[in-house]
Amino acid sequence: MFISSLSNQHIKDIVRLQTKSSARKKEKLFVAEGLKMYQEAPKEDIVNTYISETFLKENKDKIRGSYIIVKDSIFKDISDTVTPQGIICILRQREYQLNTILKKGEKQIFVLLESLQDPGNLGTIMRTAEGTGAAVIMNKSTVDLFNPKVVRSTMGSVFRVPFLIFEDLSDAVKELRENGVTIYAAHLNGGIYYKEEYEKSSSGFIIGNEAKGLTQEISRQADCLVKIPMEGKLESLNAAVTAAVLMYEAKRRL
Amino acid sequence: MFISSLSNQHIKDIVRLQTKSSARKKEKLFVAEGLKMYQEAPKEDIVNTYISETFLKENKDKIRGSYIIVKDSIFKDISDTVTPQGIICILRQREYQLNTILKKGEKQIFVLLESLQDPGNLGTIMRTAEGTGAAVIMNKSTVDLFNPKVVRSTMGSVFRVPFLIFEDLSDAVKELRENGVTIYAAHLNGGIYYKEEYEKSSSGFIIGNEAKGLTQEISRQADCLVKIPMEGKLESLNAAVTAAVLMYEAKRRL
Repeated sequence: MFISSLSNQHIKDIVRLQTKSSARKKEKLFVAEGLKMYQEAPKEDIVNTYISETFLKENKDKIRGSYIIVKDSIFKDISDTVTPQGIICILRQREYQLNTILKKGEKQIFVLLESLQDPGNLGTIMRTAEGTGAAVIMNKSTVDLFNPKVVRSTMGSVFRVPFLIFEDLSDAVKELRENGVTIYAAHLNGGIYYKEEYEKSSSGFIIGNEAKGLTQEISRQADCLVKIPMEGKLESLNAAVTAAVLMYEAKRRL
Repeated sequence: MFISSLSNQHIKDIVRLQTKSSARKKEKLFVAEGLKMYQEAPKEDIVNTYISETFLKENKDKIRGSYIIVKDSIFKDISDTVTPQGIICILRQREYQLNTILKKGEKQIFVLLESLQDPGNLGTIMRTAEGTGAAVIMNKSTVDLFNPKVVRSTMGSVFRVPFLIFEDLSDAVKELRENGVTIYAAHLNGGIYYKEEYEKSSSGFIIGNEAKGLTQEISRQADCLVKIPMEGKLESLNAAVTAAVLMYEAKRRL
């Protein structure tokens, strides 16, 4: 198949899935762009692969399955990047269940995100979660995990890190606590974060919105408030940095 | 003074300093936007403060020095943000010297950046550096510290964290090593990062470009290559996360 028009249905599908979070949620699909993402995507998740004419000429050997060719000038228009590599996929969103993520008898790390808004922060947290073997839980007000900017900044971790999206983060806290996970809320009023408790059980760290921090409601449900020690006049660290320092602190004590 | 025209020289100055790295470097000035940045800016660094008519009406009590009023419609055009708060300053760039940053007999943390390109990463690293009491050293190919996006994401740390910009990062490595600082390069081939050596001397961590990592040249000059332990299929962590995990690991051992 060769696509040479912007009004082609495939092109409309790609653009809709790139720009509309509601469409991604309804259709349970998303778009990933670039050769690295294509190579890291689980084959069974790929619905369609689209490549530009130039990509076909130069990189045909790197394609392992079927593909649809898109005219170079059209490809430029559907790409979400300034210098498109010439390959885009539509993929199925993975779905996980808490009871399969939870592993009895194993100490695990969870990061719980309350209404994070910055796509780069969410992508970076997914990436750090892979590095620490953590699972990511977020509420519905958090930026969409399948937003193209988030997907790109996960550097492929979106395909590998288990995640859950809760209508209400309190329910996640409740379920994790019932399963023996100790919940720490990253909070300005928290105690020091070098916790020996991390050694005793699985840990869940709640990270708040970039501007507003954590809501009182969710802070109250944590077992304990923690604060990363800070010098200077700083009020807080970047959300992705906070998550990383806490997750790595927990990992070293696993 | 009241500015009501885009062709006013003040407006031209702000726009030039916002958009041209070369102008910022030549004039040793930069622009910071928003009330928080204004409040955190050292008074002696402020050259001029510009406020919108609306800001004047609603927040006059928050201004501690002289200011120039800008017509609302003009202010909108000079703002680098989507929803301008109505206050912008032109400030002098701070300048530091290595011999005043180095403190004899004290264990210190340095982070050395080789050609970092993402403004958010540099801003976040400045912020984490304040939290850990570290100084930031970067080469000339690193994104301009006074780029408006970098300034914004430092959340005020740009006013407080000592920094140095080297033509060649090798010279910084050499000078730090001569002063007893142990240099660690964050590298995929590095050994594990939990270093007891961090306790023995001041530490400097070299962080490479987001896409290419460190050059061989600079890696060779480090005392030691370090790698943050990573699970999964991950090749690397985000640059600002790498810097944060290393700086906090050093801080806990200071």
